Amino acid sequence: MSEAAAPPKKQPSPQTAKTETLPPKPPDTLSGAMDGPIHVIFMRVYYEDTDALGMVYYANYLKFIERARTDMLRLTGIGRHDPDGSEREGLFVVRRCTIDYFAPARLDDVLEIRTSVTGLRAATLELEQAVYRAGKVLSTAQIRAACVDSAGRPRKISPKIRQKLQHLLTKIQPKADVNAR
Amino acid sequence: MSEAAAPPKKQPSPQTAKTETLPPKPPDTLSGAMDGPIHVIFMRVYYEDTDALGMVYYANYLKFIERARTDMLRLTGIGRHDPDGSEREGLFVVRRCTIDYFAPARLDDVLEIRTSVTGLRAATLELEQAVYRAGKVLSTAQIRAACVDSAGRPRKISPKIRQKLQHLLTKIQPKADVNAR
Amino acid sequence: MSEAAAPPKKQPSPQTAKTETLPPKPPDTLSGAMDGPIHVIFMRVYYEDTDALGMVYYANYLKFIERARTDMLRLTGIGRHDPDGSEREGLFVVRRCTIDYFAPARLDDVLEIRTSVTGLRAATLELEQAVYRAGKVLSTAQIRAACVDSAGRPRKISPKIRQKLQHLLTKIQPKADVNAR
Amino acid sequence: MSEAAAPPKKQPSPQTAKTETLPPKPPDTLSGAMDGPIHVIFMRVYYEDTDALGMVYYANYLKFIERARTDMLRLTGIGRHDPDGSEREGLFVVRRCTIDYFAPARLDDVLEIRTSVTGLRAATLELEQAVYRAGKVLSTAQIRAACVDSAGRPRKISPKIRQKLQHLLTKIQPKADVNAR
Repeated sequence: MSEAAAPPKKQPSPQTAKTETLPPKPPDTLSGAMDGPIHVIFMRVYYEDTDALGMVYYANYLKFIERARTDMLRLTGIGRHDPDGSEREGLFVVRRCTIDYFAPARLDDVLEIRTSVTGLRAATLELEQAVYRAGKVLSTAQIRAACVDSAGRPRKISPKIRQKLQHLLTKIQPKADVNAR
Repeated sequence: MSEAAAPPKKQPSPQTAKTETLPPKPPDTLSGAMDGPIHVIFMRVYYEDTDALGMVYYANYLKFIERARTDMLRLTGIGRHDPDGSEREGLFVVRRCTIDYFAPARLDDVLEIRTSVTGLRAATLELEQAVYRAGKVLSTAQIRAACVDSAGRPRKISPKIRQKLQHLLTKIQPKADVNAR
Repeated sequence: MSEAAAPPKKQPSPQTAKTETLPPKPPDTLSGAMDGPIHVIFMRVYYEDTDALGMVYYANYLKFIERARTDMLRLTGIGRHDPDGSEREGLFVVRRCTIDYFAPARLDDVLEIRTSVTGLRAATLELEQAVYRAGKVLSTAQIRAACVDSAGRPRKISPKIRQKLQHLLTKIQPKADVNAR
Repeated sequence: MSEAAAPPKKQPSPQTAKTETLPPKPPDTLSGAMDGPIHVIFMRVYYEDTDALGMVYYANYLKFIERARTDMLRLTGIGRHDPDGSEREGLFVVRRCTIDYFAPARLDDVLEIRTSVTGLRAATLELEQAVYRAGKVLSTAQIRAACVDSAGRPRKISPKIRQKLQHLLTKIQPKADVNAR
């Protein structure tokens, strides 16, 4: 049974109805922000994210980092988020995800998700994402995403989108391999 | 960033590749079964369903009962599950759900979901669902669903679907009101 | 197989490592805000929230409103969120939820969740919650929650918590019944 | 606000109450089955698993494969599932997951999850998992899990658990590297 909703005959008037005073607005920070080429967003851990071990369930980190990727594209105006609407079909789909879990996140934690573009090829995009709590890294992920058309077929990244992503491409410095443990 | 997958260039050969022996088949019980007019299906509680209190998170009961409703329609051949495909647009969407929580389900529990049709009008359907563990009721829900067309607009339930649902309509016996607590 | 993480031997240095410049801080709005006695918080709809019908899956509204309730308790300093830690056992669990779906939320929507306390008895709390998009109500819910101790047994709401909740109790005005459709 | 449930004063009598006839039992296949050393389980794709692109959301594959791993441990009697209860603390937590997405799963699909043990060291376990639909592989994952004690600290795999896992250890044959694409 599908789950959705059809329009009501009349507008309900809940107890929580808006007053006549100016209503609150969504905060400017709702989609995070760019810290140079790195997208940064904070999220709270709620009950829904945790499991019976008292920690965030491992699959839910993939939700956190997907929100961050989507908001990075939103702030950069890519694909569905393109301001003039000309590139709505520039859709990226995840082809591979490697995720490491270093320390658990728990209920009420405030997490900081940092996302950077680490690779850009003809039809694929590579990102590195990290989940921090109070400056300590809890998890890191490497994502390979492919550009597809509206039918899901692989396609080249358009010049317009490429240009925007190019600005985010982080210069890779020699570093200790995170995953060589 | 949307999450999907495009076709690979070649079929991978995982370690878990199928052997040449006859492969296992999905069990006949995958969609539950009808116990007279009542649909019955068993489900396991996994980590994903629980939260930091060690119990099933309250929203996840709505997932359990939606699986059950969908499987009831599947077994009854309604809408998208119609064998001759003529009624694919008979879609039901939830307009109201009232759910009571009597006792918590926990990790590894085997739950039994029982679903019955309790009302049938021109364009809406009413169901009662209950979640049991070892014969004890943990939760009950009353669902009102509306029939909609493919654009989400309310429509009458077609005669074909109505006939199938009519067979499931449970005669309501006088009973103690579950919710009169 | 349980899903968690043990501490790594050394701290990884992801590409997204913090720079030496002052790091961004979580926004003040992370937990929403009080609009008089009503808690208000904005949330974005992500892919994880939607389903194959292109709309927010019905159970996920229960996630949205639980986040809002938790943040209302957080801002009010109740139970686990009590500043001096003396009331950590004042836990509220949902006993009944009635939710109506008037119109669907979709991908990328910004939702406004408004929560008000509508009833307060010896051991139970009643709330009304509404989900808006651009001033239009999409869904409303009535919640009855019971106070329990750390073993999950019903207990009276403590005087300290009661006092805080009393301040939030919305005077109920005569109004058209939302659900008398 | 935490989400759980306290015991009701009296047992409700839902419309779906059990009849006096023999009730249905959970199917023997609820936890899947062993196909030699490989665990096999079938799962249905429901609305909750899909997203607005009409496909299974990428994080939900991690739910599917976690269910399969848990059921493999259940059938093998490991840790929490040990029949004599002596090894309840043998808990495995995921330290790394690499997942590839080859083709999307969709609503109503019946998926077959195959899980094999591919590595066994002093304190870690390696598994390979694959998601099939009608014999076609949609996704594969490599999992590294660490054994931890009840406080989450790394510990050696006990001899008893090791022996059980040893029986599942799949001999690795030379094969084309799945991931060398």
